[in-house]
Amino acid sequence: MRLPDSFQKLVDLLADLPSIGPRQAIRLVFYLIHQGQNNIQNLSRATDDLKKIKICERCFFIHQNPGALCDICGNSGRRQDIIAVIEKETDLMSLENTGRFNGCYFILGEISKSGVLDDRQKLRLQGLKSFIEKNLPSPSTNAQGSASGQAEEIILGFNPTSVGNFNASLIEKELKPLAKKISRLGRGLPTGGEIEFADDETLGSALERRG
Amino acid sequence: MRLPDSFQKLVDLLADLPSIGPRQAIRLVFYLIHQGQNNIQNLSRATDDLKKIKICERCFFIHQNPGALCDICGNSGRRQDIIAVIEKETDLMSLENTGRFNGCYFILGEISKSGVLDDRQKLRLQGLKSFIEKNLPSPSTNAQGSASGQAEEIILGFNPTSVGNFNASLIEKELKPLAKKISRLGRGLPTGGEIEFADDETLGSALERRG
Repeated sequence: MRLPDSFQKLVDLLADLPSIGPRQAIRLVFYLIHQGQNNIQNLSRATDDLKKIKICERCFFIHQNPGALCDICGNSGRRQDIIAVIEKETDLMSLENTGRFNGCYFILGEISKSGVLDDRQKLRLQGLKSFIEKNLPSPSTNAQGSASGQAEEIILGFNPTSVGNFNASLIEKELKPLAKKISRLGRGLPTGGEIEFADDETLGSALERRG
Repeated sequence: MRLPDSFQKLVDLLADLPSIGPRQAIRLVFYLIHQGQNNIQNLSRATDDLKKIKICERCFFIHQNPGALCDICGNSGRRQDIIAVIEKETDLMSLENTGRFNGCYFILGEISKSGVLDDRQKLRLQGLKSFIEKNLPSPSTNAQGSASGQAEEIILGFNPTSVGNFNASLIEKELKPLAKKISRLGRGLPTGGEIEFADDETLGSALERRG
């Protein structure tokens, strides 16, 4: 059946969003209509306000600061020479919520299943390299100030899956010359997990990394 | 961690929508940010345009017509004296998409589990009653023009569940004096279904209503 244009337009836009299907989009729009004009206006304004969000030019996380850096990169209390390379903003948020990391991040963007970096990712990686080379201290700084810098540690924060392992080895090759140490997130039993139900791979890692 | 206000505001609004959780809301907002300013603007405008949607004063479906009636109620080719009473707009859309109904609809709103009509539903039902009484022909019109009108048929389009059955009996009591015939949607095997896997209740109905 033909539906009002304003209705159909929003349904189409919502159904294009990831994880929202056409039926859910229809239900959402009816819900909004029932919520009334004020709530519609609030949602419309909040969506429009998203245009104020800026992307950190160093780590590519979001921020709303006057400068070019996000809260983390702009925080002088955080170590700039320890960098966690991750795929997604939500990975950053999860790591940050632990409260146990005092370094900085670098968001590469989600790597395609083929493991080939797209142009944007290559550009970002190039940016990271030149940041490290130009802004971080060189191991031989005392002798010659002109040598290129190195990170103290680069943590490859990729998922502990076969795809994640493959991506990590890919990125490790690129960044190896730029860091004294390259690490990955520790493997083992997840807190609250049960030995009985852990898979062999996880339990094997837990044994190897016991301590 | 603290996130930019514009980000958090939209996440909160989206997470308040039905069937969208806080994690999905976060992912959606990051997706929008990645989509860029133009797409954000499109979505914001489309949301705002929802304010143009009007509710039909007779059946309570949505429309964008200059008058007060929706496309269906305003269509003189449709029978106004055959009325399908349904709970939701999406039920109307499903019935309408069959292309097999030439009557009108009446959206009551979703009935709570307790089966008690809320004030808005009572008001709507009252409106339906007076529409039928005043606008539809009376069975005794030929004798006396002043007698109150009656619908030819009222179809109670509630789900074939125990809750739906209960609601139907509730509404039937209210509307019985106003219709020559009260019916419900037919029960039986769904097209494409298999007898082997049909539940007893469905198969029983299919036997009873064979033909």
